[in-house]
Amino acid sequence: MRLHVVIVGGGFGGLNAAKGLSDEAVEVTLIDRRNFHLFQPLLYQVATGGLSPGDITAPLRRVLRRQKNTRVLLAEVVGIDVDGRRLILSDGVLPYGILVVAAGVRHHYFGNDQWEPFAPGLKTVEDATEMRSRILSAFEAAEREQDPGRRRAWLTFLIIGAGPTGVELAGALGEISSDTLRGDFRAIRPEEARIFLVEGMDRVLPTFPPELSAKAEAALLGHRVRSLTSTRVTAVDEEGVTVVRGGKPERIAARTVLWAAGVRASVLGGLLAERAGAPLDAVGRVIVEPDLTVPAHPEIFVIGDLAHYVHQTGKPLPGLAPVAMQQGRYAARAIAGRLRGEKPPPFHYFDKGSLATIGRHHAVADFGFLRASGFLAWILWLFVHLMYLVGFQNRILVFVQWAFLYFTRNRGARLITGERATTRGG
Amino acid sequence: MRLHVVIVGGGFGGLNAAKGLSDEAVEVTLIDRRNFHLFQPLLYQVATGGLSPGDITAPLRRVLRRQKNTRVLLAEVVGIDVDGRRLILSDGVLPYGILVVAAGVRHHYFGNDQWEPFAPGLKTVEDATEMRSRILSAFEAAEREQDPGRRRAWLTFLIIGAGPTGVELAGALGEISSDTLRGDFRAIRPEEARIFLVEGMDRVLPTFPPELSAKAEAALLGHRVRSLTSTRVTAVDEEGVTVVRGGKPERIAARTVLWAAGVRASVLGGLLAERAGAPLDAVGRVIVEPDLTVPAHPEIFVIGDLAHYVHQTGKPLPGLAPVAMQQGRYAARAIAGRLRGEKPPPFHYFDKGSLATIGRHHAVADFGFLRASGFLAWILWLFVHLMYLVGFQNRILVFVQWAFLYFTRNRGARLITGERATTRGG
Repeated sequence: MRLHVVIVGGGFGGLNAAKGLSDEAVEVTLIDRRNFHLFQPLLYQVATGGLSPGDITAPLRRVLRRQKNTRVLLAEVVGIDVDGRRLILSDGVLPYGILVVAAGVRHHYFGNDQWEPFAPGLKTVEDATEMRSRILSAFEAAEREQDPGRRRAWLTFLIIGAGPTGVELAGALGEISSDTLRGDFRAIRPEEARIFLVEGMDRVLPTFPPELSAKAEAALLGHRVRSLTSTRVTAVDEEGVTVVRGGKPERIAARTVLWAAGVRASVLGGLLAERAGAPLDAVGRVIVEPDLTVPAHPEIFVIGDLAHYVHQTGKPLPGLAPVAMQQGRYAARAIAGRLRGEKPPPFHYFDKGSLATIGRHHAVADFGFLRASGFLAWILWLFVHLMYLVGFQNRILVFVQWAFLYFTRNRGARLITGERATTRGG
Repeated sequence: MRLHVVIVGGGFGGLNAAKGLSDEAVEVTLIDRRNFHLFQPLLYQVATGGLSPGDITAPLRRVLRRQKNTRVLLAEVVGIDVDGRRLILSDGVLPYGILVVAAGVRHHYFGNDQWEPFAPGLKTVEDATEMRSRILSAFEAAEREQDPGRRRAWLTFLIIGAGPTGVELAGALGEISSDTLRGDFRAIRPEEARIFLVEGMDRVLPTFPPELSAKAEAALLGHRVRSLTSTRVTAVDEEGVTVVRGGKPERIAARTVLWAAGVRASVLGGLLAERAGAPLDAVGRVIVEPDLTVPAHPEIFVIGDLAHYVHQTGKPLPGLAPVAMQQGRYAARAIAGRLRGEKPPPFHYFDKGSLATIGRHHAVADFGFLRASGFLAWILWLFVHLMYLVGFQNRILVFVQWAFLYFTRNRGARLITGERATTRGG
């Protein structure tokens, strides 16, 4: 009987691990709770009405249909029997020879879970359509609001966390208010919306070089986004947030607050700690060996955002798509090597660089040896994201919509759906 | 002060009424509960994963942004003060000079509302994504089901109602099981799915000429859809349906049942009856005067699916997009004419013909003088639907996705979202 490799999670890490095993003499099962792979780097464009969920997702079965040694299982993992080498699913058990856990992270409110209803995060397709409904509903509510103070609060947007997601959300919000919705309303001027980007560190994009942070902040200001750095959020409620800047508390009335700050590891991290003695870091990620396995458990790999891997530089690798993709391919190579009795060299991350975009025409790029910002970096950002999208059809669809967005400044997917289908009360 | 025309509903009727008043000396307010116009004839393609909701919707504000005499209001109408000429909204009142009610219809279970959870209908974007999730989840559940009988029930799909929507849904389901999902699964063969189309009348597409019904039925059979005509549904529950054929009850175990049968008028029909004495037909539609107004209330127009208009042929007009569009334009012309003291001639429906498509390569077309079926009718169907889509961007996006669907047989928007995000229990 062939070795059974079970991969949990169909994100960048899991999908690349599965693809890397396509020609090996193993049986592969890819488990996910969802039936599709999600291209998370463009999720903020769904949240801001530029793309539809279908454009940035690919059915897992479709992606892997020709890979005959692989099956896809829609299931939820609820436990691990490490000694018996079995996964406990919500509706059955699944034995494994080797387990690859690529279950990712969720957003995290640093012990303030009561903030979640007022400051939704952005990890799933549902998160994105909810965020989209909130943003569009806020302009609708402002249009109907007579009281100037309340109208101003509806037209105030606050994003917590100035990493790439927060910066890209803020830039897109700037475009929506200045360009997309211009002329759409009769009682309000959407371009008067105020957008705040709150960051605890002393600059936006804190993982980028300081010179690019400064350029990003300037570009954001050009999109009417005000960055509040060295600013801590101490309260979030329906009416707005309380922040502390320079030791002084300050209240900002904002009816739309978006969360782009902390993440916490999937519950599978905790399961691995409990059952396999895996060491965890402060946010619950599994601290893995140089070959991405759990200490004393060479049969369990942890990859992607869920893995805490101390890079060759001594710092843990960031939770980025390229890291997860390279780790997925590494795990596949390591598993294939073992079949031939080989011991793999430690995982080495090849940092191709970081990119973040700020509205139209502007991005920052950090390639270590080269730092770029502005229009050329933006073109590069477009190109890289199109190329990494899974599915040729998705590439065409996204390209067409970006072209329309560029030339007409319209965002086609401006739907208020779900529970927020009608206006929120003032 | 200029005459204030209030239009309720941003569907085909309301939108065309608003557009028809663009150059007139009136103030127009278009009220809708949703912020977008929905191209309902293609909603079944969202329900079957071929298109995304954003592709067949257009933001109402965007469509009307350049029409300076018109504003869009996201609001819900809860009452009408006919004497005071005011609409009662859920959060305010709105005076009108002329009222155009184009609030449409909802689906209707003929007094069997308990069927709704087991047989969802298709009127809104949320209906479509729910239907899509049910269809895809059923294949997933079948893949995991060990018991042959239960697996068969998961692979049995039953559509109630063989009008254009039911026929188009059934054809798309046939394509999904035979083409789209072929090779995606390991334990089941999706092409073994059984698809039943249940119709109370003695043929499918009962509003079309009998020869086209026969051709449609044959085309459906080619897509492995079995039509059960002269068949009445007497019970629907989680496990399947009970039908009566030729006086004999019969049980069909089907875990996915879709409703494409009856419609009932919007609640606004009832409000008009109560407040303005409007006569209603059996399904609650307002029986309108030759100029589409409510009897004794020349200031209230009712158009589109909500209107019961006895056609020049003596039969009420069907609830189709072309009827609503022509009535919307007529109402605008009639209102403009009144400003000049003119009395409009009665509304005359110009029947351009009916079309229905059955999977790839096949459609039926009835132009009265000409009846067509097959490939050319299908090309015509594609062309007409692309041309009537609102928004040039939507046309391009739909065209690209149809081209991909045609050549790759893939359906890109195969997302299981919302509450059915994980597998349903067996």
